[in-house]
Amino acid sequence: MDIPAGLTESPFSQLLGCRVVRLEEHLAEVALALTKPLRNRLGKLHGGAMFSLVDVAMGLACSTAHGFDKSSVTLECKINYIRAVADGEVNCIARVIHAGRRTLVVDAEVFQNDKLMAKAQATFAAL
Amino acid sequence: MDIPAGLTESPFSQLLGCRVVRLEEHLAEVALALTKPLRNRLGKLHGGAMFSLVDVAMGLACSTAHGFDKSSVTLECKINYIRAVADGEVNCIARVIHAGRRTLVVDAEVFQNDKLMAKAQATFAAL
Repeated sequence: MDIPAGLTESPFSQLLGCRVVRLEEHLAEVALALTKPLRNRLGKLHGGAMFSLVDVAMGLACSTAHGFDKSSVTLECKINYIRAVADGEVNCIARVIHAGRRTLVVDAEVFQNDKLMAKAQATFAAL
Repeated sequence: MDIPAGLTESPFSQLLGCRVVRLEEHLAEVALALTKPLRNRLGKLHGGAMFSLVDVAMGLACSTAHGFDKSSVTLECKINYIRAVADGEVNCIARVIHAGRRTLVVDAEVFQNDKLMAKAQATFAAL
């Protein structure tokens, strides 16, 4: 799916350095490199930055489901942190598992190489 | 509670512009202003930035409980977004509601003036 960057990027996703890797119907993959400003007090990828990557990917997955001319907002999200990210890059794959008229249920996994780093599930509202 | 900024700040909390307002035993209050780089595709405060504020405040609340010489990491967190933040500043108040030997349960609310904007609950691991 080939979508202009102006429709896939937000000021915040740019601030973090999120990079859209893949957009398919009901799916988005977004990469994030662990740069210095994204570190927590322990020097690892901050949990907020990891969550933000997930939220960005989920929002884009919703856009592939209802169209980039419509908007959606996160209603709630639960994330489990499985492994700390010490360096390199992580990839988040978000999938819309149910696209309803008013809400979408989205699932996301964050990987580094083949290792699962985090897992999340959310509900989005279609506007 | 008067803690040196070097112990309360991380590169990521500085990137966002988080400001520690109050630290008490088992409690942290952190403020965040909606600057341009924190906006989502709709121009509102990005859900990832709001979550990051919550995660920062929760981490600091844990530090007040187990001491700033120890560390903690987020294991899981659930957030509900209640109202969109269109401008101004929000404040997050995080409270440790159970400080165990190995894990801490933390609750957080994000307010703008007297309005509840988001609500979160998390488990942290004490390292």
